[in-house]
Amino acid sequence: MTSCRVDFESLGVRAECADGVLLSEVAHKAGIGLVSTCSGLGLCGRCRVQVIAGAVSPLTEAEREWLSATELADGYRLACQTRVLGDIKVHVPASSLLVAQRLQLVGEEIEVAFEPVVEECLVALSPASMDDPRPDWARLVEGLESTYRRRVTTADLMALRRLSPILREGGWQARVSIRGEEIVDVRPLNRGPLGLAVDLGTTKIAAHLVDMETGDTLAAEGIMNPQIAYGEDVISRISCAMESGGGKLRQVVIEGLNELIEKLCPEPERIVEATLVGNTAMHHLFLGLPVRQLGLAPYLPAVKASLDVKARDLGLCIAPGAYVHLLPNVAGFIGADHVAMILATGIYKTDKTVVGLDIGTNTEVVLAHGGEMRTTSCASGPAFEARHIKHGMLAASGAVEKVKILDSAVEFQTVNGAPPIGLCGSGIVDALAELHRIGLINRRGRLGDGPRIRQVGNTREFVLVSGEGSKTGQDITITQKDISEIQLAKAAIRTGIEALLDEAEIAWEQVEKVILAGAFGTYIDPASAVGIGMFPALPLERFKQVGNAAGMGAKLALISKLQRTNAGEIARRVRYLELMTHPNFPMQFARAMYFPAE
Amino acid sequence: MTSCRVDFESLGVRAECADGVLLSEVAHKAGIGLVSTCSGLGLCGRCRVQVIAGAVSPLTEAEREWLSATELADGYRLACQTRVLGDIKVHVPASSLLVAQRLQLVGEEIEVAFEPVVEECLVALSPASMDDPRPDWARLVEGLESTYRRRVTTADLMALRRLSPILREGGWQARVSIRGEEIVDVRPLNRGPLGLAVDLGTTKIAAHLVDMETGDTLAAEGIMNPQIAYGEDVISRISCAMESGGGKLRQVVIEGLNELIEKLCPEPERIVEATLVGNTAMHHLFLGLPVRQLGLAPYLPAVKASLDVKARDLGLCIAPGAYVHLLPNVAGFIGADHVAMILATGIYKTDKTVVGLDIGTNTEVVLAHGGEMRTTSCASGPAFEARHIKHGMLAASGAVEKVKILDSAVEFQTVNGAPPIGLCGSGIVDALAELHRIGLINRRGRLGDGPRIRQVGNTREFVLVSGEGSKTGQDITITQKDISEIQLAKAAIRTGIEALLDEAEIAWEQVEKVILAGAFGTYIDPASAVGIGMFPALPLERFKQVGNAAGMGAKLALISKLQRTNAGEIARRVRYLELMTHPNFPMQFARAMYFPAE
Repeated sequence: MTSCRVDFESLGVRAECADGVLLSEVAHKAGIGLVSTCSGLGLCGRCRVQVIAGAVSPLTEAEREWLSATELADGYRLACQTRVLGDIKVHVPASSLLVAQRLQLVGEEIEVAFEPVVEECLVALSPASMDDPRPDWARLVEGLESTYRRRVTTADLMALRRLSPILREGGWQARVSIRGEEIVDVRPLNRGPLGLAVDLGTTKIAAHLVDMETGDTLAAEGIMNPQIAYGEDVISRISCAMESGGGKLRQVVIEGLNELIEKLCPEPERIVEATLVGNTAMHHLFLGLPVRQLGLAPYLPAVKASLDVKARDLGLCIAPGAYVHLLPNVAGFIGADHVAMILATGIYKTDKTVVGLDIGTNTEVVLAHGGEMRTTSCASGPAFEARHIKHGMLAASGAVEKVKILDSAVEFQTVNGAPPIGLCGSGIVDALAELHRIGLINRRGRLGDGPRIRQVGNTREFVLVSGEGSKTGQDITITQKDISEIQLAKAAIRTGIEALLDEAEIAWEQVEKVILAGAFGTYIDPASAVGIGMFPALPLERFKQVGNAAGMGAKLALISKLQRTNAGEIARRVRYLELMTHPNFPMQFARAMYFPAE
Repeated sequence: MTSCRVDFESLGVRAECADGVLLSEVAHKAGIGLVSTCSGLGLCGRCRVQVIAGAVSPLTEAEREWLSATELADGYRLACQTRVLGDIKVHVPASSLLVAQRLQLVGEEIEVAFEPVVEECLVALSPASMDDPRPDWARLVEGLESTYRRRVTTADLMALRRLSPILREGGWQARVSIRGEEIVDVRPLNRGPLGLAVDLGTTKIAAHLVDMETGDTLAAEGIMNPQIAYGEDVISRISCAMESGGGKLRQVVIEGLNELIEKLCPEPERIVEATLVGNTAMHHLFLGLPVRQLGLAPYLPAVKASLDVKARDLGLCIAPGAYVHLLPNVAGFIGADHVAMILATGIYKTDKTVVGLDIGTNTEVVLAHGGEMRTTSCASGPAFEARHIKHGMLAASGAVEKVKILDSAVEFQTVNGAPPIGLCGSGIVDALAELHRIGLINRRGRLGDGPRIRQVGNTREFVLVSGEGSKTGQDITITQKDISEIQLAKAAIRTGIEALLDEAEIAWEQVEKVILAGAFGTYIDPASAVGIGMFPALPLERFKQVGNAAGMGAKLALISKLQRTNAGEIARRVRYLELMTHPNFPMQFARAMYFPAE
């Protein structure tokens, strides 16, 4: 037997092998991870390499099927079909290399190995005959065992129902999606697996569609949570469910999700796994768990452990055998979305002192310090989402998102530069910080006298944009009541953080990083947040805005078993502080209502 | 500490214990199995014993709740609540003793330890409070661990939805039904667990309702399989499903089963586990598995392994988290009903040479010889169920079930002694055996000339009951065509048995026992079966008629884990012989059509 040298040019790797060895084996032994989902059966066509020089075995039928005429002319081959017959030079294109997933959070990048809980196997079985009368199921089990050393013991009934026709129509070739020892789905070869990561917020539902062979995000979409019709915040949703049963609330959110799935994906039956995060109330309402005990002291979840539930039991229209994995909750008011945020931001493994906030109708705060994590929940209300604000609106075209006030002149910026219609959350925070800076709002939050300020009945308002400048022809104003709403919201958050600092017996100055997650956390100007006293005057570089970290956490759990384990560990490690029973709460809250002193 | 002597009078057992020890512990250490499902918490009230003499601790609240005034006056106590305070004498009533289940098959009795796959645990948890804010699920998991050393890791979603309200309404006490590591159901204390064992026959569906705390059968019911409207035998059902999809066939059988369940049980939501046996086609149609490949060579099942499927995925209205366990199939035409028959009759563990038959539209035959089991399936058709017989009818009131012919006089017996309406299966076999015995039917099956025989067109018939004697006023006759139908049916069975004997290279004389199962097998007169040549003239004491052994096998698998394991072993061990491909089949079949020579 001659020895051949294989030169993987672009990678700078050289290997030796015996004459006649498969190129895929040579690559594997040399530590080069080639993409492949068929264990070298020639069924997936993914391990493409370019043979630049040297003798290799002739083209196989599988290669003629998978490679285009141009590719064949350029020397492209499937590594699993090509035997080395002499010294050769090979180029491995980047698309054929297994790479760790890089996930982008604004300002942060995490590297996660793609190792999802659902594995995809492509099989080619020997056909049934009088001489080989094994049932289709036994044939599949034995095929997986012999090709992949993969043990399966059970199949979802809906997958089992499809097995025989798919095998027969596909010439005894098929794809199977395996979870633990269960086959959850069977599909024809040309239908790859997809995954879905959902962040089920009180206000918005955001979802990512993921290629479950690579971990790539294929699409992202968001919709309003249709439960809003039954109450804007968690408490009112719980009340509604307590009065009239949670069935209706569950139904509308499932309908909403199915609509979202349809938007994301023309073939939702290819989605073989989903992950979902949300606060504890959203989690319970989604599952149809009772929420009565969540709404009454001691505010207990029915369950906080992670759960795996068949999608069809929930009414979700994805692969009928797929599971939805729900990340664990921490407490009645600290849900899986917070766990997902801690996961995605890496707060759980920091040795620094870090505060993380996911600002929403309910704001969850975590403090990592000295290797410990403490968390609490603040009822910050909808003001930061510009609801309950007179001229508040979503951050849509025409929303004032940035404000500067110079003497009596107002400079502002709107979303898309469109004529102003109203104010979104970051706009109103900016405006209040500016009004306070120039002295038109005192420490208690009262509007004083000044240009653009007018009396309306027994209250006052500040005219941010006059009717001539607005799209509607109406003045866009900030009322005394708007200011109070924002004061309540920012006080809730500040009080939550201070309670955690108290518990850990540290001062604000020791906080090395403040991570702002969530839509509002991304768009708010940290300087303005400091300006209204939501945070003390920490150096601005300590603030990091990371976007939808909860949704990113859901995606991490979708593509990585290890990240699911990490999420479980976070839920166990984090210590929950109940704010309302904290003795200093009323005083701290009252103090936090004030605007900062100069 | 004083030592006390406890005298369990009726059992002849004496034990010593320290002063103050619980009577339940004393009994346990003395090897006396007391019924209890609450691990001594005083929640189930089952460990009743009568203290005849001696000093014991005062009555507890639990005892006052569980025991009637008369029982208290008679010295009845709960063993788990009563501490021994001196030498005592105790009577243990039979109802408080754990006993193995004795199952009656006609002529056979099996003893099976009650050890179902679903275990029942009664729990009393500590209430939720601000100081103990564990979620309900964690509280339950930890309670099961501490009281029963029972690990659970998951709960069915529907059980989880009920957990919080049931715990709160029941003062933190509840029953949970556990399967493996999954909680499949949660119920209030006063709702004990039930089980369902189903024999899904091509013609009839029979079911037993079982108390899942004792293994006792509470009720049994049967209905016709409503799929009959879509074809009388397995082949026509498969054809129907191939033409129009199996959905309709599945739907009607599920509806039929739900009707049957409603008849059996006023609270079907207490049924926490079901087992089901049927032939492979019934099994596939019930599950909604495709049957196309069952109907075409090489006649493969989609799956033959045992399966556990959520009842709700099938549409069965029992506890929403319950599983249906389907016993394993052997081959396309040897289903789980045959496995269940082999299980219930103990054929799988015999060291004798035994033939077992489950006679029906399809007749399955097993031959045990030299520690090996061979099986085959015969298309015996519906003639033995008296269908396709001119005056055939079910074995209902007025059906002729026994016949003797003396010269030209006919003596007969009808079901319930009612005036005759028609013939059931055993009646027609009797009649043919008699007609052959007295020479009115020759070996080929032709009716000769004689009294009561008349020509009708170009065929003949025998008048069994004349119009004056029948309820309908019409003659009840046996036609030449009826004889042919029975000849085909009995030839199919005889050929099946002979093929197995050939394979095992043994002769009829070596068969030590012939077990006849199924309704027809129970009612047929073995002498008549020999008389028409279904069997050769073996001594009659070798025939055993055992009733619905398949149904009994389903019950065994319901109440015993070990029996499920045995069923799996049977399905693996049994060797299937395909009759149609057997080279001697046509000749053997032709020979078996003959009536026996004198």
